[in-house]
Amino acid sequence: MTEDRKQRVITLTTDFGLQDTYAGQLKGAIYTVHPTVRIVDLCHAIPRHDILAAAVAIHASYAVFPAGTVHLIIVDPGVGSNRPILAAASDKQFFIAPDNGILSLFFQDNSIEKIHRVENRALFREEISAVFHGRDIMAPVAATLANGMELDELGSAVSVASCVQLNLPQPVIGSSTIEGQILSIDGFGNIRTNIRESDLAELS
Amino acid sequence: MTEDRKQRVITLTTDFGLQDTYAGQLKGAIYTVHPTVRIVDLCHAIPRHDILAAAVAIHASYAVFPAGTVHLIIVDPGVGSNRPILAAASDKQFFIAPDNGILSLFFQDNSIEKIHRVENRALFREEISAVFHGRDIMAPVAATLANGMELDELGSAVSVASCVQLNLPQPVIGSSTIEGQILSIDGFGNIRTNIRESDLAELS
Amino acid sequence: MTEDRKQRVITLTTDFGLQDTYAGQLKGAIYTVHPTVRIVDLCHAIPRHDILAAAVAIHASYAVFPAGTVHLIIVDPGVGSNRPILAAASDKQFFIAPDNGILSLFFQDNSIEKIHRVENRALFREEISAVFHGRDIMAPVAATLANGMELDELGSAVSVASCVQLNLPQPVIGSSTIEGQILSIDGFGNIRTNIRESDLAELS
Repeated sequence: MTEDRKQRVITLTTDFGLQDTYAGQLKGAIYTVHPTVRIVDLCHAIPRHDILAAAVAIHASYAVFPAGTVHLIIVDPGVGSNRPILAAASDKQFFIAPDNGILSLFFQDNSIEKIHRVENRALFREEISAVFHGRDIMAPVAATLANGMELDELGSAVSVASCVQLNLPQPVIGSSTIEGQILSIDGFGNIRTNIRESDLAELS
Repeated sequence: MTEDRKQRVITLTTDFGLQDTYAGQLKGAIYTVHPTVRIVDLCHAIPRHDILAAAVAIHASYAVFPAGTVHLIIVDPGVGSNRPILAAASDKQFFIAPDNGILSLFFQDNSIEKIHRVENRALFREEISAVFHGRDIMAPVAATLANGMELDELGSAVSVASCVQLNLPQPVIGSSTIEGQILSIDGFGNIRTNIRESDLAELS
Repeated sequence: MTEDRKQRVITLTTDFGLQDTYAGQLKGAIYTVHPTVRIVDLCHAIPRHDILAAAVAIHASYAVFPAGTVHLIIVDPGVGSNRPILAAASDKQFFIAPDNGILSLFFQDNSIEKIHRVENRALFREEISAVFHGRDIMAPVAATLANGMELDELGSAVSVASCVQLNLPQPVIGSSTIEGQILSIDGFGNIRTNIRESDLAELS
C-alpha cells in the first residue's frame, strides 16, 4: 500500500492553456506535498470557463487510469468566491473540482460513492491567492489524497442532491428513433453525443 | 536490471494535438501497466496523418534518450483496419508504430536489429476501440516492453523487406554538387534535408 | 538526502514551442544523466528570444516549487557564441540560464546567494551542437545539479555585477501615486506590473 501510494497518478484538466505558467505551477504545488506522484496533463485546452466541456472531457477519459488516480479538474469561474470545492470518489478513483457542475455526468450515472467538501485548511498552501485556488487549495489537497488521506479528513460529507448540477440535454427516445445532441467534436472529427449505450438498448 | 526497468522512459510522438484528452489517455493506459516508467511527450503536433513528418521527427530525436527507451509513434491513418503494428529494436532502443512507413529512415540506415509484429492479445487492454489502437494496443505494449518483456513475446518476427517503406526522396550526388530536398523546417527556421554526412564525404 | 536527490524537480522554461521535438529532447538529455528526477514543463511558449518575458515567467513561478528544485531557462539568442552560461542559487532553489539577463529580477531582489559559470566540460554531452546548448550543455548540467553536485564544481564563481542585467523599467513613486509599467498580461487578462508590494508600503 505504501508503495502503491508512492506511484499514484494525478491528472490535470483545466482551462489554463499552455501560454502561461499556471499548469506548471500546479505541479510545483503537488510535488511540494507528494514528491513521488506521477502527474498527467489530461487537457489544458478546455475553452475558458466551459464547465460542460470539462465535464465531458473528464467523464470520457477517467476510466483509462489506474485505481486510486486523483483527477483534478479546474474550470472555476467562481474562483475567489465562497463556492465550495468538492472531493468525490467514484469507481475506485477520486475527483476534485469546484462545486459548479463539472461532476454532473457522474451524478447522472449515479456512480458517486462519497462526496465531501474540501474544508481542511491545514492542507492548503500557507498563502491563498484569490485568483488561484487551483494551485493553493486544490493541488495540495489532490496530492494529500493521492498520498492516502481519506475523504473524511478533507471536510464534511455532502449529498449529491446538494451539489450544483448542469442542466444536461437528454436524448429523446421514440419508438424507432433517438434524438440526441452533440456534446463535443474532437480534432479528428469524432462526435460525442448525449446518447448512451443503455439508450440504444431501450430502443430495441 | 530490475531497478533499470523501473526507470525506463517511454516517449510519445503523435498527431493527436493537445486540444483533446488523447495524449493524456495514452499515459493512463501506460501507467496502468507500468506505474514507475517516465513518459516524455516528444511531439503531439505532427500534422494529421503525415507519416513522413513522424518518421523525420523520431529519427532526428531518438538518439538523445537513454538505452532501453521505448518510442511510441502513433500516426495511424489505417487505425481500425488490420494493418500490422510493429515493434523494432535499433541502437539499444525500441520503437512501436503502425506498419505504415514511420520507421523508414531506420530501414534506410540498416539500423534495425529485430522487428516483430505486435500480436499478443494478452497484452492489450480488455476493450479495444476501433479508433484508438494507440491507447488500447500500442500503449500497454510499450509499457510491457519498457518493463522488460522481450520482442519475441510480442508476436512473430518479420523482415524489414516485408514492412511498408516510404518512397523517400534521395539526394543526387554529382561531381561537385549535391542536390537534396527539404524534409522539415523547425520553428526557428532550421532546415533538415535528406543529405546525410556520409553523402558529403562521398562528394569530397 | 540520497532519497531527496532522487525526487528533485527540474522545471523547463523555453521559447521552443511545442511544434518541434526540442522540449522532448531536453528531457531525454536530463533522464540520461538523472533517471529518477521529475521534470515539469513550466512554459515553452515564451515569445521567441523574449528575455524579459522569460525573466518575468520564472520570477513569478519559482516559489511554488519545493526546495532543491532546479529551474532551467532557455531563451538563448546568443546560442553558439561564447556568451557564458550561469548557474545560480537563490531561496534554496537553483537556476541555470544563459548570461543574457534572464535572472535580472533575482538580481534586483538581491536574492542570489551564489552564482557560477557553467564551464565543466566533463558534465556536457559528448557532441555539442552549436544551435542546441540547451540540450547538450544546460540539460545535463541541470540533471547533475539536481543529483546533488555543488555549484563550485560547475565552474568559477562570478559576481552578480559581472552578469548581464536587463534595463528594467522602475516604478515612479510620488507622494500619493505610483506610476508603473505592465510586464505581462496572462490568458485570463490578469496584468503583472513592475510595482512591488514594498513600493506600496513606501507610498503609505
